[in-house]
Amino acid sequence: MREGAIISRFFAPLASAEPGSFALTDDAAILTPPAGAQLVVTTDSVIEGVHVLPSATPAQYARKLVRRNLSDLAAMGATPWRYLLNLHLPVANESWLTEFANTLRAEQEQFGMVLAGGDTTLGGERVHLTLTCLGLNDAAPLRRNGAQVGDAIYVSGTIGDAALGLQLLLEQASTDPFLVERYHTPTPRLSLGTALRGKASAALDCSDGLLKDLSRLCTASGVGAVIQREAIPLSDAARALHSRPDFWNCVLTGGDDYELIFTAPAIAALPAGVTRIGSITATQGVRVDDARGADVTPAQSGWEY
Amino acid sequence: MREGAIISRFFAPLASAEPGSFALTDDAAILTPPAGAQLVVTTDSVIEGVHVLPSATPAQYARKLVRRNLSDLAAMGATPWRYLLNLHLPVANESWLTEFANTLRAEQEQFGMVLAGGDTTLGGERVHLTLTCLGLNDAAPLRRNGAQVGDAIYVSGTIGDAALGLQLLLEQASTDPFLVERYHTPTPRLSLGTALRGKASAALDCSDGLLKDLSRLCTASGVGAVIQREAIPLSDAARALHSRPDFWNCVLTGGDDYELIFTAPAIAALPAGVTRIGSITATQGVRVDDARGADVTPAQSGWEY
Repeated sequence: MREGAIISRFFAPLASAEPGSFALTDDAAILTPPAGAQLVVTTDSVIEGVHVLPSATPAQYARKLVRRNLSDLAAMGATPWRYLLNLHLPVANESWLTEFANTLRAEQEQFGMVLAGGDTTLGGERVHLTLTCLGLNDAAPLRRNGAQVGDAIYVSGTIGDAALGLQLLLEQASTDPFLVERYHTPTPRLSLGTALRGKASAALDCSDGLLKDLSRLCTASGVGAVIQREAIPLSDAARALHSRPDFWNCVLTGGDDYELIFTAPAIAALPAGVTRIGSITATQGVRVDDARGADVTPAQSGWEY
Repeated sequence: MREGAIISRFFAPLASAEPGSFALTDDAAILTPPAGAQLVVTTDSVIEGVHVLPSATPAQYARKLVRRNLSDLAAMGATPWRYLLNLHLPVANESWLTEFANTLRAEQEQFGMVLAGGDTTLGGERVHLTLTCLGLNDAAPLRRNGAQVGDAIYVSGTIGDAALGLQLLLEQASTDPFLVERYHTPTPRLSLGTALRGKASAALDCSDGLLKDLSRLCTASGVGAVIQREAIPLSDAARALHSRPDFWNCVLTGGDDYELIFTAPAIAALPAGVTRIGSITATQGVRVDDARGADVTPAQSGWEY
């Protein structure tokens, strides 16, 4: 199967709701964003053996690819609109492509996006997938740089699940379906992101580890942070692994959670499902305190993609 | 050197003219296209050993990547505006990155684009580069599907140079600086593209071979074509290789020229620098005639990326 046949068979159907995609048959797409909307643009890749395990299924590739990108839109308070896909595959495997495209269809329907263009190349050793998402925003965006001294620090959902799930997968010993699924299929917090516009002073998504990403928010805002380790929201499945020697490292520095980290005045009325984990301080850096107030900040803060 | 350091040192400076890029420090860029403009979006990749030779220099990578994409904008009649870059490199080599980023700066200045976002990942075996270009258009775009029976067929520049240059590089025997440069550094025909809006009935860029791309235009338009082989514009350097057994194959089916192929009523007043090579017919398919009117259509029509 050649590139042109792959595009027309598997991907042109995903573009049918956008007439300006020209069914992926022209040189470029022509898009007309709604009047008055800002265009919020992000791009991220998923590479075999780097962002997913070499054993990842086509559905796992598709979901990680889409959700990694949508998490960036969520962190800006934007709404998904259109996307482009670059598909670099060593070979054309029809069953792989069928499952990948079917999952992509389910993802774009769930999140309200339409495929508008892309590029398919066969060759090379590894799967390299890139998505470029165009989102829309009609209000002040969430930014990283507005955190103020005294603001409370919040996170959505639970932290550490994905890193613990990945560890279980790598160890190939015991496993936990919930944690493994949290690694494979993150949930972009899109409705939280839009709800936080005008309320959060700063926000970003937690992709490379809680401390690493919180440090980025602090650096952008010119502030520091103290978080209470025992306040970090944990799932029951994560809590069950509490005795692992790497438990707190996974929670504090493991990546792939794709929850939102944000700051807001402590008195702000916030949406449900968020947990306060600390406070913004004037002292640079991110410190982690245990329940007794002892500094338990780990030496290495997280991943970098 | 880690991804974050690469971005801030080499790529953030390329984003300085777009405040909505946030110096590549936030989760996404926020862009506001000029009122009334259509957004013309395209994406294309350059993979080591697939689209460039494994020996390509960083400058050659950058130029091929940018120009491959801009050629798609030219083929729509659009003007470059913003771009995103996905950089997947096996390792971080500072001198490679320096030359690549310096070339990218020269390219974006020459073509009037600004970097607005991207993604950098270290790992894997090969260089995979992806550019996503956002162009603007304020008039009816050029499309592939409007060619009418009786229209004349035109090409810009000269055809076959890139394929002949590539052959010389692969053979490592004699070389020709002009042809090799035509392979490494195509010229996107942006001003021709905008000038053809409202004049050409159909257009696309010639990236995969004259016959392959002309076939695509004909298929999209529901027509056929006859071209006169001796009418195809050739450079002096190409003409000097006329005795090669693969000469006409390179001209007719070699890729990488990135010239525009377009159709227009034969009486249309057209910009300079274009050559008529044939006519649109009602008979499906693309036929090539030699000077005596004999059918010399090759069996295989070109590359597919």
